[in-house]
Amino acid sequence: MYPESTQVIDAQVPLATELVEALGERVILDPEKMAPYMGDSSRATAQGIPLAVVRAQSADDVAAALSWAHRNDVRVSVRGAGTGLSGGAVAYPGGLVLALDGMNRIVEIDVVNRLAIVEAGVITADLDRAAREHGLFFAPDPASAQTSTIGGNIATNAGGLRCIAHGVTRDAVAGLEVVLADGRILRTGSRTRKNVVGYDLTSLFTGSEGTLGVIARATVRLEPVPPGTPQSFRASFDNIGDAGRAVSAIVASTHTPDVLELMDAASVEIIEQYQPSGLQLPGAALLVGQTVGTTAREEAEAILDLCRAGGAADVAISEGEGLLEARRLANPALTAKGLRVSCDVGVPVGELAAVFTGIEEIAQRHGRRISTVAHAGDGNLHPTVEAEDTPDEHHAAEAVIDDITRLALRLGGTISGEHGIGSVKRHELAWQLDEGSIWVQNAIKRALDPHGILTPGRGI
Amino acid sequence: MYPESTQVIDAQVPLATELVEALGERVILDPEKMAPYMGDSSRATAQGIPLAVVRAQSADDVAAALSWAHRNDVRVSVRGAGTGLSGGAVAYPGGLVLALDGMNRIVEIDVVNRLAIVEAGVITADLDRAAREHGLFFAPDPASAQTSTIGGNIATNAGGLRCIAHGVTRDAVAGLEVVLADGRILRTGSRTRKNVVGYDLTSLFTGSEGTLGVIARATVRLEPVPPGTPQSFRASFDNIGDAGRAVSAIVASTHTPDVLELMDAASVEIIEQYQPSGLQLPGAALLVGQTVGTTAREEAEAILDLCRAGGAADVAISEGEGLLEARRLANPALTAKGLRVSCDVGVPVGELAAVFTGIEEIAQRHGRRISTVAHAGDGNLHPTVEAEDTPDEHHAAEAVIDDITRLALRLGGTISGEHGIGSVKRHELAWQLDEGSIWVQNAIKRALDPHGILTPGRGI
Repeated sequence: MYPESTQVIDAQVPLATELVEALGERVILDPEKMAPYMGDSSRATAQGIPLAVVRAQSADDVAAALSWAHRNDVRVSVRGAGTGLSGGAVAYPGGLVLALDGMNRIVEIDVVNRLAIVEAGVITADLDRAAREHGLFFAPDPASAQTSTIGGNIATNAGGLRCIAHGVTRDAVAGLEVVLADGRILRTGSRTRKNVVGYDLTSLFTGSEGTLGVIARATVRLEPVPPGTPQSFRASFDNIGDAGRAVSAIVASTHTPDVLELMDAASVEIIEQYQPSGLQLPGAALLVGQTVGTTAREEAEAILDLCRAGGAADVAISEGEGLLEARRLANPALTAKGLRVSCDVGVPVGELAAVFTGIEEIAQRHGRRISTVAHAGDGNLHPTVEAEDTPDEHHAAEAVIDDITRLALRLGGTISGEHGIGSVKRHELAWQLDEGSIWVQNAIKRALDPHGILTPGRGI
Repeated sequence: MYPESTQVIDAQVPLATELVEALGERVILDPEKMAPYMGDSSRATAQGIPLAVVRAQSADDVAAALSWAHRNDVRVSVRGAGTGLSGGAVAYPGGLVLALDGMNRIVEIDVVNRLAIVEAGVITADLDRAAREHGLFFAPDPASAQTSTIGGNIATNAGGLRCIAHGVTRDAVAGLEVVLADGRILRTGSRTRKNVVGYDLTSLFTGSEGTLGVIARATVRLEPVPPGTPQSFRASFDNIGDAGRAVSAIVASTHTPDVLELMDAASVEIIEQYQPSGLQLPGAALLVGQTVGTTAREEAEAILDLCRAGGAADVAISEGEGLLEARRLANPALTAKGLRVSCDVGVPVGELAAVFTGIEEIAQRHGRRISTVAHAGDGNLHPTVEAEDTPDEHHAAEAVIDDITRLALRLGGTISGEHGIGSVKRHELAWQLDEGSIWVQNAIKRALDPHGILTPGRGI
């Protein structure tokens, strides 16, 4: 299947031998057994098979693998659960895949100080469940939380549904254990809420997409589960501009929903086709959200008042999680339909109506249907372009994505709110970052990974 | 007064001429006029007079000054209002002082997106006042907010009184305009809530204490002023361990005060001597705080219930700001008494009782009185050691500080919660940071400031 890469392996047998000597059965060399570790959940694909997969069981394993790769100039991709949407974890031909899914111990839950210490491969939802046994929870909540790992969430600074109230993953990370490119191990951060000792290396490694070091372990902050019963609410709109303006009005009010998500009619249709959950097809867009705490009901009512005042056709409050569970199905539903060309732009929340209107114009201009789900409360949108799952169609759809991305930037936004750059957004970097910023990023990369082995050519 | 440094200046006349050619009357060369720009509010003092002070009016001025310093290998200290407590802004003999107090424009307040764009020299309280005209406020609230600048707050990642509910300065910074050591200008961050494009340079420059670049302008996040009347509360304790345990219980509850401060009896006495505000001297410690929002009164009552259950001798609720204003006087009151040897340790909040008990033991062992004020809710303490304002006494008091610092580290804490390292805490760095972390920090410093001109020998 990949003849050119099999040749690479043949030439690298002594290399692999050295790796096996260091890490024994944690090294996988059989191409068939390596296959599940080669891709991620993006449209990027591996261009050849890797030399080896290392299934690390400890930070020392990670150190041994990186030390080997550093000495031998072998490119390394780092992998949690492979749920990334930007191609960051795709294997390099002849490279090393460092798989951290076996490092899945919850080492400590410190209830008094509301901290947890976890290995990188812990599934995010497992951490949340363990915290809830103590009346606490882990706030960062990417839609993939049931399958993605905390290490991957931190490496990409994942967002999710609860960011409007709780911030992004970075806000929940107190400290890290990181393995540098040459295999040295360091610890960042502290267990205290405040800490101004040296540069903020915790934030530097968080979101660095595997390019500066490998996160082996993290100290994360937990929050108390709010009292009372969470209230879910929905409001349907016949005009997507109205929906955008309603979101801006909610965010500008003193009512803070825990979740505030928007699905356009096309998205609702795709989700209902994938797994019917009784969502009624809105004229243009369905806003769903959740309030928590002792005033959750009043808050939900006040938010729906703002929706009604903003032109909502139909509103309702319920106590279940059904509305949010339907929202979480968006990605699998799109994937099941073969719709893989999507983006992850963000805009200041006051520009939501403008960006939705602009996306409609772009759809018309290109003659392609665009379905959009959005973490509306924080201005983060995931438009997906309708296209067959072929290279030519992907290419045409990517031109649509580029137009949406330029629109977001014109509105003061960002090319990526939460999925990261990986390989699929790398051509857009210079649209957002200025020369000085790119120079600083490259200078840091060169200083920390002089051989350029860590996820090279992706991220920054 | 500083003969050796005057000689330095004489030798550097051509250098100064070049600077004046670039920046005209914004350059101060007269030692008498430079004097007010030479120190900060710490116990560190300048060891000689600088070559020049540049009072920058724009990022371009900063760029011109740094470009000159970079070409000529002149050491640069950067200064906002000189309220720093760690010696970071003290002038270098023969160096350049870059003063940003003239860059004090509030460029924009974006009410819809709750952002402000400010120049570095804006006084923090002025930004807060401007925001309040729009129903918003700037949450970071160092005790020096009435005099310190936002640029200095960001460069040190300042903390303050409201961190328990609103986080530290870093949490309020969305983006920066930074001038690099060689005079190049770059922009970091974005106006969106989520942004994962490249490394988190905003967090890297925040808290870098002038060692990586000079912050010229910032985009900061504002928050809505909560509805209702804030409620202040106080609880006095006859045993400081009880007070520490009460704070831990409050923080572990679902009640979130906006402010939760502790003053031991010695601090209350010093503050009342400085400016009587009717604070009753507690047996051991006085806990003061504030709740906000529509449930402020109930929250304050619930918090005081926890205090009573934890052994508080006397509790009360009031509506004024008097209690917090008294707390804000701690630093000027200590300075007025000539008490300048203090520290800034932090501990996980569950260790508060242990750290207070340990400080009592250290005081007894050294036979010196220690007065402590604490941002109790986030575990950040400022113990001050009683000592005459002489070098010998400072030296003896610093040994006490070192013991307190080691105690905080043993309890899982930090050597600096909010004041930064500057020059006065540099010998403690390796007590907290491991070799790998120090290597990474130095690698970044060398990459971004290869000539080592920016605040050398301080911070990291």
